Amino acid sequence: MLCNHFLHSPISILSPSPSPSPSSRSKLKLFVSNSAMDDGGSSKFKEFPFVSNPHKNLMLDLVSTLENRFHSHLLPSTLPSHVQYYQNPTATAQASLHIRSAHAHSPIDFILGSWVHSELPTGGSLDITSISGYLNSSNDAPNFVFEMIRSSPTMLVLILDLPPRKDLVLWPDDLKTFYEDTQLDKHRKALEALPEVQPYFSSSLYIRTVASPTAIMVRIQTQNDGGERMEEIIRDHLDPISKQVLSIWLDHCACAKREVGEAERAYLKKRDGIIRNKTIEIDLGSSFPRLFGSEVANRVLEVIKEYFSV
Amino acid sequence: MLCNHFLHSPISILSPSPSPSPSSRSKLKLFVSNSAMDDGGSSKFKEFPFVSNPHKNLMLDLVSTLENRFHSHLLPSTLPSHVQYYQNPTATAQASLHIRSAHAHSPIDFILGSWVHSELPTGGSLDITSISGYLNSSNDAPNFVFEMIRSSPTMLVLILDLPPRKDLVLWPDDLKTFYEDTQLDKHRKALEALPEVQPYFSSSLYIRTVASPTAIMVRIQTQNDGGERMEEIIRDHLDPISKQVLSIWLDHCACAKREVGEAERAYLKKRDGIIRNKTIEIDLGSSFPRLFGSEVANRVLEVIKEYFSV
Repeated sequence: MLCNHFLHSPISILSPSPSPSPSSRSKLKLFVSNSAMDDGGSSKFKEFPFVSNPHKNLMLDLVSTLENRFHSHLLPSTLPSHVQYYQNPTATAQASLHIRSAHAHSPIDFILGSWVHSELPTGGSLDITSISGYLNSSNDAPNFVFEMIRSSPTMLVLILDLPPRKDLVLWPDDLKTFYEDTQLDKHRKALEALPEVQPYFSSSLYIRTVASPTAIMVRIQTQNDGGERMEEIIRDHLDPISKQVLSIWLDHCACAKREVGEAERAYLKKRDGIIRNKTIEIDLGSSFPRLFGSEVANRVLEVIKEYFSV
Repeated sequence: MLCNHFLHSPISILSPSPSPSPSSRSKLKLFVSNSAMDDGGSSKFKEFPFVSNPHKNLMLDLVSTLENRFHSHLLPSTLPSHVQYYQNPTATAQASLHIRSAHAHSPIDFILGSWVHSELPTGGSLDITSISGYLNSSNDAPNFVFEMIRSSPTMLVLILDLPPRKDLVLWPDDLKTFYEDTQLDKHRKALEALPEVQPYFSSSLYIRTVASPTAIMVRIQTQNDGGERMEEIIRDHLDPISKQVLSIWLDHCACAKREVGEAERAYLKKRDGIIRNKTIEIDLGSSFPRLFGSEVANRVLEVIKEYFSV
């Protein structure tokens, strides 16, 4: 999931220099031991140095819940340090990227986290934090996507979704299993009951297309109080709702026992591949170059493609 | 498209008595000549006796635009008169249904229109009017759906969409052709700029799933002025926007020259079939029996299935 309305996405936080990373993910998996780095190579990522405490605490809780649950599955990050942390030449933008692949027998393909802090020409700053979980084709359950985009102390966009990996029209049983039986929609409803919360429509029809029918895509606008009410909303509403949705994903999607036949695996690979390529295309083709220059886009493409290939 | 939140859908307006209709649509097409009924057997349907003038005028304009454009394609209605018009035993609900199939070489499969007027137990009344266009598998373009649900003079739900017939994730070119290049989203945006208009989320996740990324699903709530402002909104906003969206559907979807291979036809038939069965299931399984009793559901199923079979 990316949010080109705001010129950013989880994969927009990338190094501008050529990557010395290995040429294939299988190599990554072969040559890196689980104990190589105790924090999974994520020290800079987990600093979240520019966001408020409620925002940072929520991100850290989501990341640690995800990493603890799949502790034995996840390999340490092998991203080069200048991709794990990066700032532009004028130091008006800083960013951190965190990707951890899982071992070959895990239902997890990889998890991807990021933060970006960018000074705005109009004053103020833009802060985006995200964490996503991508499954591989041995599991046909939805992925997990979480993104907070804060363009002022009183304005925040939240994207929280379990985007389906199959056409739910052709698989109505999946609609029931993952979205109806789990009562996902009640979390969207709870949030939209707040007077400061409005539905958010991405300017990208592609982003709307990949979203699930229970996607939480909201714009939160609070009164001009310096951000006090927004912090309250993050702490009292976004925090518990996000954790409940992540918990549903972990229990009912990522850890679900699913029978996936050969034909269905091929279908998942095709559909996952299209989504991932489209994500890269939209991101590197428009928003990312505007932030970091077109040279970066090409350099970064090769690194990202290692993880996004299916 | 149906709207079980309001216990209704376009196909909820049906006769409670067994249908004497022919046993297959091919028979309908064989034995009815185009000149049999000059108005297509739609006199009662086109009365729209319970809605305001702006509402009625809009419906009549949409229906006549559709019927005039496909005049040479459409066969007259062969619905029995007690399905064309129906009222319940206590006369608290009246309804009209209008279905016209097209000839075998038309891109149109059938068009379906309806109105229902029902007295509410709380006083006041519920009025639903709808018109839809379904394409057949020689054309892979989206269908057309229009529905107005008015539960009081000051409350209206509008559903206006070109629901896709293919998974837009797997066919991103279709997303571009039918939704981006046609600038469909500008009509949704124009409507949502009105202060009385809010996004509407159907309680049915299935309905959200079949909707397009530019679907107009809105709830319009006006101040307590007896409905004056609502009539103004219908006349000045819903009327032109609905006609523009229908025009896009006619020019860029229904009349588009599309190459549809054998495999794709099979895919369309499968997906169309699932959607139509699910529509009948949700409607006859929940909302329709609540309005007309469970006996009607089974009786009507056979009539409707004639048209909904692919």
